[in-house]
Amino acid sequence: MFNFSLMGAGRIGRMHADIISSHPECNLKYIYDINEKFSIELSKKHNAAISSTSDQALTNNEIDAVLIASATPTHIEFITKASRSGKAVFCEKPIDLDIIKVNSCLEEIKNITTPIQIGFNRRFDNSHKKLQEARKSNEIGQLELVVITSRDPEPPGLDYLKAAGGFFRDTTIHDFDLSRFILGDDPIVQVSAFASTLISEEAREIGDHDTAMFILKSKNGVLIHINNSRRAVYGYDQRVEIFGSNGMMISGNQSPTSVEKFTSSHTKANDPIHYFFIERYAQAYRDQFNDFVQTMNSKSKPSVSFEDGRNALIIANAAYESYNSGKVVDISYE
Amino acid sequence: MFNFSLMGAGRIGRMHADIISSHPECNLKYIYDINEKFSIELSKKHNAAISSTSDQALTNNEIDAVLIASATPTHIEFITKASRSGKAVFCEKPIDLDIIKVNSCLEEIKNITTPIQIGFNRRFDNSHKKLQEARKSNEIGQLELVVITSRDPEPPGLDYLKAAGGFFRDTTIHDFDLSRFILGDDPIVQVSAFASTLISEEAREIGDHDTAMFILKSKNGVLIHINNSRRAVYGYDQRVEIFGSNGMMISGNQSPTSVEKFTSSHTKANDPIHYFFIERYAQAYRDQFNDFVQTMNSKSKPSVSFEDGRNALIIANAAYESYNSGKVVDISYE
Amino acid sequence: MFNFSLMGAGRIGRMHADIISSHPECNLKYIYDINEKFSIELSKKHNAAISSTSDQALTNNEIDAVLIASATPTHIEFITKASRSGKAVFCEKPIDLDIIKVNSCLEEIKNITTPIQIGFNRRFDNSHKKLQEARKSNEIGQLELVVITSRDPEPPGLDYLKAAGGFFRDTTIHDFDLSRFILGDDPIVQVSAFASTLISEEAREIGDHDTAMFILKSKNGVLIHINNSRRAVYGYDQRVEIFGSNGMMISGNQSPTSVEKFTSSHTKANDPIHYFFIERYAQAYRDQFNDFVQTMNSKSKPSVSFEDGRNALIIANAAYESYNSGKVVDISYE
Amino acid sequence: MFNFSLMGAGRIGRMHADIISSHPECNLKYIYDINEKFSIELSKKHNAAISSTSDQALTNNEIDAVLIASATPTHIEFITKASRSGKAVFCEKPIDLDIIKVNSCLEEIKNITTPIQIGFNRRFDNSHKKLQEARKSNEIGQLELVVITSRDPEPPGLDYLKAAGGFFRDTTIHDFDLSRFILGDDPIVQVSAFASTLISEEAREIGDHDTAMFILKSKNGVLIHINNSRRAVYGYDQRVEIFGSNGMMISGNQSPTSVEKFTSSHTKANDPIHYFFIERYAQAYRDQFNDFVQTMNSKSKPSVSFEDGRNALIIANAAYESYNSGKVVDISYE
Repeated sequence: MFNFSLMGAGRIGRMHADIISSHPECNLKYIYDINEKFSIELSKKHNAAISSTSDQALTNNEIDAVLIASATPTHIEFITKASRSGKAVFCEKPIDLDIIKVNSCLEEIKNITTPIQIGFNRRFDNSHKKLQEARKSNEIGQLELVVITSRDPEPPGLDYLKAAGGFFRDTTIHDFDLSRFILGDDPIVQVSAFASTLISEEAREIGDHDTAMFILKSKNGVLIHINNSRRAVYGYDQRVEIFGSNGMMISGNQSPTSVEKFTSSHTKANDPIHYFFIERYAQAYRDQFNDFVQTMNSKSKPSVSFEDGRNALIIANAAYESYNSGKVVDISYE
Repeated sequence: MFNFSLMGAGRIGRMHADIISSHPECNLKYIYDINEKFSIELSKKHNAAISSTSDQALTNNEIDAVLIASATPTHIEFITKASRSGKAVFCEKPIDLDIIKVNSCLEEIKNITTPIQIGFNRRFDNSHKKLQEARKSNEIGQLELVVITSRDPEPPGLDYLKAAGGFFRDTTIHDFDLSRFILGDDPIVQVSAFASTLISEEAREIGDHDTAMFILKSKNGVLIHINNSRRAVYGYDQRVEIFGSNGMMISGNQSPTSVEKFTSSHTKANDPIHYFFIERYAQAYRDQFNDFVQTMNSKSKPSVSFEDGRNALIIANAAYESYNSGKVVDISYE
Repeated sequence: MFNFSLMGAGRIGRMHADIISSHPECNLKYIYDINEKFSIELSKKHNAAISSTSDQALTNNEIDAVLIASATPTHIEFITKASRSGKAVFCEKPIDLDIIKVNSCLEEIKNITTPIQIGFNRRFDNSHKKLQEARKSNEIGQLELVVITSRDPEPPGLDYLKAAGGFFRDTTIHDFDLSRFILGDDPIVQVSAFASTLISEEAREIGDHDTAMFILKSKNGVLIHINNSRRAVYGYDQRVEIFGSNGMMISGNQSPTSVEKFTSSHTKANDPIHYFFIERYAQAYRDQFNDFVQTMNSKSKPSVSFEDGRNALIIANAAYESYNSGKVVDISYE
Repeated sequence: MFNFSLMGAGRIGRMHADIISSHPECNLKYIYDINEKFSIELSKKHNAAISSTSDQALTNNEIDAVLIASATPTHIEFITKASRSGKAVFCEKPIDLDIIKVNSCLEEIKNITTPIQIGFNRRFDNSHKKLQEARKSNEIGQLELVVITSRDPEPPGLDYLKAAGGFFRDTTIHDFDLSRFILGDDPIVQVSAFASTLISEEAREIGDHDTAMFILKSKNGVLIHINNSRRAVYGYDQRVEIFGSNGMMISGNQSPTSVEKFTSSHTKANDPIHYFFIERYAQAYRDQFNDFVQTMNSKSKPSVSFEDGRNALIIANAAYESYNSGKVVDISYE
C-alpha cells in the first residue's frame, strides 16, 4: 500500500482524491488545502486526515507519495520539498509559468531518483494513445501532418485567467505536449503563433486571448497545426489527426451515449459531446494514475517527466515570442 | 439511335422522358397519355410528337422501344401489344395487381424474343448493388441475415391508394424484389406478414395499411426482415443490411450534402436525407435505363425479367395470405 | 452498509463481486459456489468468507441481500429461501426455464415485501434507456416500429447450450424484455418466430438454433422486429431503433476508442466494437446494481420485477409455439 | 443558344466540353488546342469544328463565349482577345503566375462589360456553399475559426510541376479563394506559411514543396488554417470546417457509395473517398457552368470575378514571401 498526501482540494484535487481512494494499492492519508474548509470536506468523504501545514503533508514519514493539485505558484516548492524527502511526486501541469524557476528547480532535483511525474493526462487517453502507437509502428507510414483541435466549452472567470499565465501557457501547453508525445524522437524546432480575442470580455480586460492557431515544424519536416478556442458551445472539442505516407488516423470526439436522432430538421444527430475534461478524460486520468503507481512499484522512470513539463513550457514561450514578433521562432530546449 | 414511345406523362413518366432524351443513343419520338394536356406539355419540352391513340405509340413502324409508365391497369395491354409488334419494352412495376392476368400475359409473350424489362430500379443503385455483388463473391462469407428498411416520406392520397392494390403490392413489392436480387439463386420459400394502420386516415378508410413488417425465409435458411412505413418525417429511408459468416455490410441512407452541424443541442447532425425516390434513386434510374439500352444493343436477355415482376407479386400475394390467416405461408412460384 | 452473499463465482459472478466490492455502501461478506475452488479464489480477492453451504449464505443473520449468479436450475430455490429469510434478492436472468416452476415460485413469494430484482441489465444502458425515455415523453411522437439487432460474437460450447434452454429462452429473452421495457404500458400481444441453424455444429447436434428473427405486435399496433445470431465476427452487435410519427432514434454500437482509420482500401474504419456483454454493458451492470441498492435504501419496488422475468419467459415460450406451429401466436400473461 | 469556343482539349478541357454540350442553351462550336490531335478527337465526339488558329476561335463572329482551359501562359492573351471581341469569357484558374502580367491585364480589360469569370469550382460545391451561406446568415453566430484540409491523391509528374508555378500558386490558391469566399466582406490581411518536401522526388528536384500549412488572419480577427499534401492514399481529401460563437459546421468528404463494412478487423469502414477533382466536384463544375450561363443571360456581374483570381494570387505570393522570410506577412491588395 502506498500512502498519499493530496495537495489541493479544488475541482481537480477532488477528482484525484476519488482516483487515489479507489485504487486497490493506494491509501489517501493526508489532504492539505490553503482553504481548510475544502480539505475538511474532502477528508470526510475519504476518511483521510487534514494536514494543517503543507510541510507536514509533504514530508511526513508515513507518506510514500504526494499528488500536487494545488495552485500553480506552489508547484515548485511542493515538488522540491516532497522529492527531497524521498516521496514519489505526481504534479499537475504546469510546473510553473516562469522558465527561470523551472530551470532552477531542475537543478535542485537533478540527482533525485524517486519519480516526479507531470500531469499531461491526454497522453493516457486510449484514442489519442492509439495514434501515438500507430506513429511509432509506422502504421500509416512516415508521418507528414498532425492536426490538433482543442476547444474548451466556455471561458473561465477573471480570477482564473489572471493566474493562468496566458492562453498559450494555460491551454495550448496540453497540445504542445501532445504534439511532442505523438512525434516521439523527432523534436519540434519551429513555431508560428496567431491569436485573437473574440469571445471573452475578461480575457480582453487583461490582454489575454481566447482564440488561437499555431503551426509547428519538426526536425524531420513534419508540420503540426493546433487550433484553440475558449468556447465551443457543443462541448469540449478534442480531436487529433495524424497523416502519413500510407494513410490517416483521426481520434475523434466522444459522446455520453451512442444515440442518433432523426427528425424533420436533421438526421444522425448525436448528443452533445462530453462537456469538459473531467468527463472526457475520465479513463485517461484513471490510467495516468495507474501508470504512476506502476512506476512506483517498478522503480522505473516516469512516463511523463519533469523535462516533458519544461519542454512544453519552452514551446509555449516560443509561441508568445512568435506572436509578439510576427516571426517564425526557432525553439531551443537548452 | 433507338426511337422511343413513352406511355404515361405523369411524375415518373416525366422523369423517364428526361432520361431518354439525354441518352446519346436514344430519341424520344412519341408520347402518349390518356390526359392529352400532360402529353402536350411534355412533348414540347422534348421536341417529341403526341400520340393520339395508344396503339399508334405502341406499334408505329418508326418506333424501336416502348417505355411504359402509365397507370397499372394498362401495363399488360401495352406490354403485349408493343412486344408483339417487335418493340423492346421497359415497363414500370408492377406488371399488374392480379396474378391471373399476369399469368395469361406470360403465356401470350412466352415466345417473344425482344426484351421486356420490369422497372425494379433499386437493383441499379450503386450501394445496394455493392451488397448484391458482395453476396455473390462471398465477400462476407455465407449469407445468414438480411434486413431491409424501406419507408416513404409521407402517405399518398386516397385516389392513389385506391388504385395501388394494397400496401404490400404497391410498396413492399420493391423490397420483395430487392430480397430476391440479393439472394440470387437461393429462392425465398416462406413469408410471415404483420401490418397496422397507424398513420393514414385514407388508408384506414379503405382498409389498407401504412405500417408493416415481414420475415421471409430462403431455401438455404437465410432469414430476411423487411419493415415499411408510409411516413418517415426525416425523408425516404432506404437501408439494406446483409450479414454473414465473415461480416456485415450496410447500404445506408444518402443526403444531398456532406455537411454536419454542431450546436449546443446536438452534434454531427446531417441534413435530412433525400426526400423521395426521384432524388434518392436518380443514379439508379439512369443506370437502369443505360442497362436497358445495352440489352437492346447486345440483344441479350433483360437484367430484370417479366418473371422477376411476377415472382415479386407472388410473394406479395403470399404475404397477404399470411396476414389474413395468421400463418407462415409457403410460397409457390408455379 | 449492506452485507451481501454472492451465489455463484463463475464469469458473471466475478463481475458482480467487483461491482459489490466497489460500491461505497456495500460489503461482499459471503461467497458460495458449488465448486469450492471458485469461491475460495474469489473470496481471497475480495476479503470475503466462503460459505460451505448455500443455506448459510442465503439465510445467515449478518446478510442483508443476496445476489444470485449461479446456474439457472438453482435460481428458484435461492430466490425463495433468501426472500423468505427477509433478504433483498437480486437474481440474474432467467428465473427458470420452466414456466410452471416460475408460477409456483410466484405463488410462494407473493406476500414477500423485500425486493426481488431480475437482472435485465440492458434496461440500464444509458443509450437504450434514452430511447425508452424518448418513447415515454413522446419525443419522437407516437411509437410505430421497433427494430432490435442483438448478435453474440461467437457461439458457446456444447455444455452451455445443453443447459441454456434453447436460443429464444437463453438469448432472445433479453430482447423480449427490452421490447417490453421500451413499450411501457402497451403490452406485447402477438409473436411470430423464425429460426435457422447455420453456424454452430453443437447447436445442430442438440436441435437448437443459432440464427433467428421475430415479429411482435403490441396491443396498440406497434410492430417490433428482433434479429439474433450466435456469431457476429465484428463483435457484440447491440442496436435498438425506435420509429414514430415525429422521427427516429437509434441506439448504436459502441467501440473502445473513437479512432477512425483511412487507407488506400477503406475510410472512416472504426475499431471492432466491444467484444461481448461484460465490456459493452459495463456501465449498465454498474447502474443496475446502484439501482438495486437504491431500492433497498428507499424500500421501494424493484425497477425490474419477478413479473418482468416471468413475462419475458412467457414471450419466449410463445415464440417457440409459433416456431413449431408456423402460426402467429397470441400471448397470454395469465 | 450560346455558341462556345473551347480553348484547350486536355483533361479539364474535355470535362468542360461535356458540360457545354449537355447544357440545353449552349452549343460547342469550336475547339482549339495547340496539339491538333487533341482538338480533332474531341471535336468528333461533340460535333464541333476545329479552329486551326486561336484567334479564329477567340474572335469569330459566330461565337458568343469562350471557355479557356488551355495552358496557364496562354490565359491572359486569350482573356484579353476574347473579351475585347465582345465575348463572354470563362477562364480556368490561375489567371497567370505573374502578378505584374495580371495587373496589366486588369488595366486592359477594366472597361469591358462582358463577363469574365474565373474557374474557382469549389465555390459551387453544394456542401462548401452551405457553409458560406451559414456564415452569411450567422447560422453559427460570429465566425471565429476556419479549417481547410485539401490534399491531392498523388503528386503530378515533373512536366506539370515545372509549369505549375509552385505548390502554393498551383494548389493552395483554391484554398485561398475558398477562404475568401467563406469570409465574404471580411478581408484576409495576414499570412504565415510553412512547407516541406516529404513525398515527391520530382518536387525536390525543382525545389518545390508537397506538404504545406498556412495560417491566415482576417481583418475581424478570424483565424484560418489550411493544410495541403500532394498525396493522400485514401483519395482526394476535401474538408472545410467553420466554427463560430453558436456552433460548428463541417463539410466532409464524399464517397461513391453509402456502404459500410464490418469485419473482424474493422467496423463502419466506408469505401475510399472520390479519387480526384473531376469525380468529387462533378456537381460543382456543372453548377459553375450553369451560373456562368445565367450571368450571360442576365447580363449581370460574374459570381467569381477577375479580381477574385487576382486576389487569390496575391495571397499565394504573400505566402511565399512569408515562407522565404520566416515572417508573418501583411497582405496588400493594391
